[in-house]
Parts: sequence; structure tokens; C-alpha cells
Amino acid sequence: MAVSNNKSADKKVILVILDGIGDLPTTKTPLQLAKKPNLDSLARDGITGLMAPLGKGVVPGSDTSHLQYFGYDLEKYYPGRGVLEALGAGIRLRDGDVAFRANFATLNGTEIIDRRAGRIDSNSAKSFEEILNMTVDDVEVIFRSTVEHRGVVVLRGQGLSPLISDTDPHKLGKLIHSEPIGSSKESRKTANAVNKFTNKARELLENHPKNIERKGKHLPIANGVLLRGVSAYKKIDDVKTRFGITAACVAGGALYKGVARYVGMDVVDVVGATGTKDTDLNAKVKVVMECLKDHDLVFLHIKACDSFGHDGDLKGKTKMIERIDRLAIAPLKKSGAAIVITGDHSTPCVRKGHSGHEVPILVYCKNERNDDVKKFDEISCMKGGLGHVTGKDLMPILLNLIEKSKMCGS
Amino acid sequence: MAVSNNKSADKKVILVILDGIGDLPTTKTPLQLAKKPNLDSLARDGITGLMAPLGKGVVPGSDTSHLQYFGYDLEKYYPGRGVLEALGAGIRLRDGDVAFRANFATLNGTEIIDRRAGRIDSNSAKSFEEILNMTVDDVEVIFRSTVEHRGVVVLRGQGLSPLISDTDPHKLGKLIHSEPIGSSKESRKTANAVNKFTNKARELLENHPKNIERKGKHLPIANGVLLRGVSAYKKIDDVKTRFGITAACVAGGALYKGVARYVGMDVVDVVGATGTKDTDLNAKVKVVMECLKDHDLVFLHIKACDSFGHDGDLKGKTKMIERIDRLAIAPLKKSGAAIVITGDHSTPCVRKGHSGHEVPILVYCKNERNDDVKKFDEISCMKGGLGHVTGKDLMPILLNLIEKSKMCGS
Repeated sequence: MAVSNNKSADKKVILVILDGIGDLPTTKTPLQLAKKPNLDSLARDGITGLMAPLGKGVVPGSDTSHLQYFGYDLEKYYPGRGVLEALGAGIRLRDGDVAFRANFATLNGTEIIDRRAGRIDSNSAKSFEEILNMTVDDVEVIFRSTVEHRGVVVLRGQGLSPLISDTDPHKLGKLIHSEPIGSSKESRKTANAVNKFTNKARELLENHPKNIERKGKHLPIANGVLLRGVSAYKKIDDVKTRFGITAACVAGGALYKGVARYVGMDVVDVVGATGTKDTDLNAKVKVVMECLKDHDLVFLHIKACDSFGHDGDLKGKTKMIERIDRLAIAPLKKSGAAIVITGDHSTPCVRKGHSGHEVPILVYCKNERNDDVKKFDEISCMKGGLGHVTGKDLMPILLNLIEKSKMCGS
Repeated sequence: MAVSNNKSADKKVILVILDGIGDLPTTKTPLQLAKKPNLDSLARDGITGLMAPLGKGVVPGSDTSHLQYFGYDLEKYYPGRGVLEALGAGIRLRDGDVAFRANFATLNGTEIIDRRAGRIDSNSAKSFEEILNMTVDDVEVIFRSTVEHRGVVVLRGQGLSPLISDTDPHKLGKLIHSEPIGSSKESRKTANAVNKFTNKARELLENHPKNIERKGKHLPIANGVLLRGVSAYKKIDDVKTRFGITAACVAGGALYKGVARYVGMDVVDVVGATGTKDTDLNAKVKVVMECLKDHDLVFLHIKACDSFGHDGDLKGKTKMIERIDRLAIAPLKKSGAAIVITGDHSTPCVRKGHSGHEVPILVYCKNERNDDVKKFDEISCMKGGLGHVTGKDLMPILLNLIEKSKMCGS
């Protein structure tokens, strides 16, 4: 608890995003079922409400809700998935780069047999990385393998455009030839580079030693790369410029790191922060405490509740909440910082996917107003003193808590 | 109580803005601490809620929140500070006038030694007014001294532009040469006029008898004029045109009168309404009652709670609320008019400045809906039947109360 007596923690805020935390009551929601004395004590001593990340009833993706929470309106700032994935994978993008989410797939000719190449393991996938970094005409292709079959592709060069179609059909079927959207020279050039890369990748992968090894083991080979989520990168004003604050991100999942890097947060890699159900919460909290020393806002992302929701595992989600309460919330309470806890969307176990239901939010801060809500869950927080807020309200609320707002007017 | 039996008070509304009324509970808020039977009885008999003047968490200035309350969206109508200050000082602006907030300062050459000329008294400042009204080339310069070191400057002439930089560095340092923003002829002409005025003002002030007198008394002399908040005036549609109502303003502070004049309210000057802690509430209420006779909406502004908040004086703010309750709210209750009471923003004593926390609002009107909130304060009103509203909601709510709304659709 090095920071518990740290005066600098005053006027700082920890934003805890419990991914997919919101749920529906088959009987009760996981938040209602879980024993979570620390979350409940913060609710009791703070002020609560419900938040619709992108508006009532709207079903958010994870990238969009985070970007909106950080104060970046989607209409103006949402760059598309490829850019956020590439930033999350640690690629330093330059203005004009065109980025894609990539999948390793198993092809038979141009027929996709397995969209994930048998969910190839990360190490095997990594062994293909080198040969997929190449130059196509005058376009540099940067390939980065991330987790299992997942990766990113970035095209870098003069006169590129994101106005082209994906090669990934998003389902089984034929690999798609990328086509320009509209007739610009830039779109034609980019689609052409994508198609050349796709063909070259097939040739190079087909006889790669790792695939020959997999054939021998009767495993699906990774002989194709599917591209989707095309988007172009353009540097935007960071949180320091726009809001006058320093911010750090502590997350396991690459997408969250990508959004954080996009808005100029310091992204701290934590050993053991996996973005999975067995993530090392102790390690993450320790880094949050460190980051508090020299950042106004520390964003802590915990993924697992969302994964349990996608699996329809009510019990698992409930137990995960209890683990978070014990290992993350208890020590954070002692930090001396303001604490805001919410989710990026609901992932009801009964739906096994995202939903448009509001997420509970709690704001805990010295001298803050207090309501009489005593529990942190979807139903109790309906009566909270914050009322119903949206994702657009979150950054102004955070800035106001730590007295970093710029006055509007005089 | 001439109006208490006045039938014309029916379908009229008094909007009471208690400046900076919202607060934070170090233990309790001033509104919670104050004995205020009249405010509480209106809360009990009316409907309450919380209002975020410019949106949740956003920290409002006083000018912006008032303009928004009067139904004028800031993106479209906010003219900038200079215009509102000039209107508040009683200058009748014409389309194309360029207005500034001005400070008397003490200069050594172009070095600012004191940004407020030793907070020069209003009478002394007034004595400089005459020489500062001048013509620079073909531009008329109107100078008006207001309170202490404060004043306004208006440039009037053909082809002026507000796209120029301030001469006020907003801190100690060198007086700034005004520069055109962009390369338009109008900006160059305006910056040039500003710089000529600034130089001429220095020459004229340096040897003014009042300054020679001050030198003799070893007081800082007022030998410089700093300009900021540049903005251009353009007449806008008034409340009568836009909403079909007549409105009057009863306020002490110049800025509030300025906003009211900008939207076309009748501004009544009240002897004793000082905009300070010792303002004459009896006199203001008397004028409100008079104004009710021939106006649909009477806006009563009371500044002092904000000043106590800026001073961090919890006890003073609490006592002021009690004084307002006794001297203003009690007689207004008998007016027969609908009454809406709220603040323009929170000024928590613990922060000594504006904050982005919501303000309580109460709506009292014959036959209006009623909730079960019994006290007018930040915590009680969380449960109010109005819910959470924003400044954009206020004018439609007022119009609806007095049945002056235009139907949207058919």
C-alpha cells in the first residue's frame, strides 16, 4: 500500500471498467448474486446511477464505448477497428497508414475451410510473422501476430485509402478479392496492394516449415490471411491536449490498449495481465498504484466478466466479480484516489453477447455527494443520485471530480 | 403585496436564480444546513429535480448557463464575454461592434506591474472615462468604467472583425501587441485600432490629474488598459420573437443584465441591487412584483451565494440562504405566479470556485404535478419527480408552465 499515504493520490481518479459487467436477471444478475463487500461499501459511501454507453438501448462494441468514455465523440473520432487493433498490437502508426484486423485461416484454393486455422496457438502463429512483413510494389506491409489466429496488417506508403472492401467474407465461403470503393486512384492502389499481399501470403505460407509440421500432425494449416475492419490512421489531439490531464492505461486486452494509445494514454504492459479469466489482478492493481503517482487518471480494464457473459456462465461471472472485489477493489479503496467503477456494456449470460442495457456506475470521492443506494448492481443503481447518464457524460464527470475541468464561459 | 390579488399573476412565472447555490457535503451542504421554511414549503408543494446547466459534469461560467437557461443554445448564440459585459454596462451595441472586457492596470513601459491598478476604486476609475472615449482613424472607441478596475471597450466603425488577439496576457508580463488572426483586411484594421488605442490610452492616462494624485499618495497608477474577451455583436431574435413572451430582468450584477439585454429582456435597474452580499432583497422583490404586472417571465438574479462559495464561507452561504428565504422567497410565494428556483452552477465552499455538479431545481405552480420531496437541497432533490434535466430543458419547462409553448407538430 505504498500509495495509501501518498498525498498525490488526492485529486486523482481511477476508472475501473469491468468489461461486460451488466446483466439480466434470470433470477438475479451476477452483480446481485455476488458477495462483494468492497463494491457495496463504495456504493454506500458514494453516488450511483446507470449509464448507457452510447445511448439508451444502443448495443456498444468494446472499442466504441471506451473511446466515448475517454471523451472522444464517435462521429468525429472513431477510426475503425483496424487502427485500434494495430495500435493495440504495439505498431507505431503514421498518418495515412491503412490498418486491418487479420485472421489466419485454412484455405483450399480460395475456399475458406476454417476461419481460424484450428485456433492455431500463438507461438505457431508468431513463427509466420517474419515472412509476412514484405513490400508490395512501393507499399510496405507490416504484419503482426497477436493472440492465437489473430493479427493485424498495416499498409504504409504514399497515396493509400481505406475506401476498399474486406477480403474476409466474415463467414465460411470464398476469400474475397478486395475492390476499390469509388474510383479514386488511391483506392485502386490500396485494393491492388491488398490482393497482391493476399496472394503472396498464400504462396509463402503454404510451404512454411510450421505448416508442414502441422500437416504431419493433421492440424489445420494457416495458409491464408483474411483482412477486415479496414481503417486509416490520423493522429488526433491526445487527452493532455484536449483535457489537460495525464492518463495511464492498465489492461490485458490489445483492443483496450489500442484505444488508450489512440487517445494518448501511457499504456503500461503488465506481466500477468492477460485479458483472460486467469489474469493476475494483484499485478494489475500494483501497477495502477504506481501509475497514480504521476498520472491524473488511471484506467484499469478487467476483461473476464465479459468472457463469462459470452460463455453464458452465470456462476463463473458471479465468482469473477467476487474475485475482482477481493483482489482489485479492496486495495484500490485504500489508494486515496477518487474511484469510478462501471462497465463498457452489458453482456447478459442469457444472451451470450453484448446488449443495449445500461450498466451500473458508481462514483466515490472525498466530499462528493452521496445517495442512499447501498449496493452496486443493475437494480439498486436505478435509484442512484447520478440518475441516468451516457458515455458522453463520463469524461466531464471525471474531470469535475479531480478539478481539471475547463470552465465553459466566464 | 399589491400583486397578491392581481389576476394577471396567474400564468406568469418568476425564475429565481440563486447564483452558485449548489454545494458539496463536507458534512452537509449550505442548503441542507440552512433553516429555510419557505423554500422547503415550495419544494413540498411543488416538483423538484436536479439540473446540469450545460450537461453532466460540465463546469459552467455564469454567462453561458444563463444564456442557455433563456433558451439560447450556446453553439449558435454565445457571443463571447466582451459583448455581454458591454451590454451589461449599458452600452447600446450595434451590429458589427467589437467589444472587450477591459482592466485598468499599472504599467512600467509595456511591463504590467499590477493587473488591477491596486484594485482602484470605482470613483477614481470613473474619472478616466472621458479621455478614453476617442476616435482612432475612422474607428470610434467607446470606453465605460464599471466596478473598480473593471470596464468595457467597444470599437465601432466599418469593416471591423473580432478575429484578433487580446492585449491582456491574463497574467503579469508584457502588454501584448494585438495581432490579426488570419490575414483579412478587417482583422488587420481592428488590431491596428486596438494598438493605437492602447498606446494613446497610456499617453493620456500617464499624466491625468487623478494619477498624479495617486502617485502623490504612493498608490498604483492606472496608466494602462488591458483588453480581453473580444467578441462581435450581432442582434439576435429576442425572447418575444422566439418564444412569444415578455420578460424582465431584476439583477445587480452587470454580466447578468448583459445576458438579459442580449436576449431582449427588459432590464430594470434597482437602487440597492448591488450584486453583492449586502444587496437590498426587499427592493429587488418589490420590483419583481411590479414587473409581474406586464411581463410573462420575471427573472430574479441573486448573486451572493456564489460570492460566499468563492470565499469558502460555508456559514456565510448558509446565512445568506436563510436571508433569501425570509426576504425574497416568503413574499414571492404570495405573488400568485408560478415560481421556479434553481442555480446557474454549483460553487462548493470546499472548492472556492465553480464546479460541474448539478444544481437543485424546484417548480411550483398551481395544478402542477407534485412529488414527495420535502426539502430543497442537492440530496433531497435527487429523488425529485422532475428527474435530471439540463439547461436546455429549462425554457420549454417555463413556457409549458405558463401555457405559452408553441406546439411542435400538429
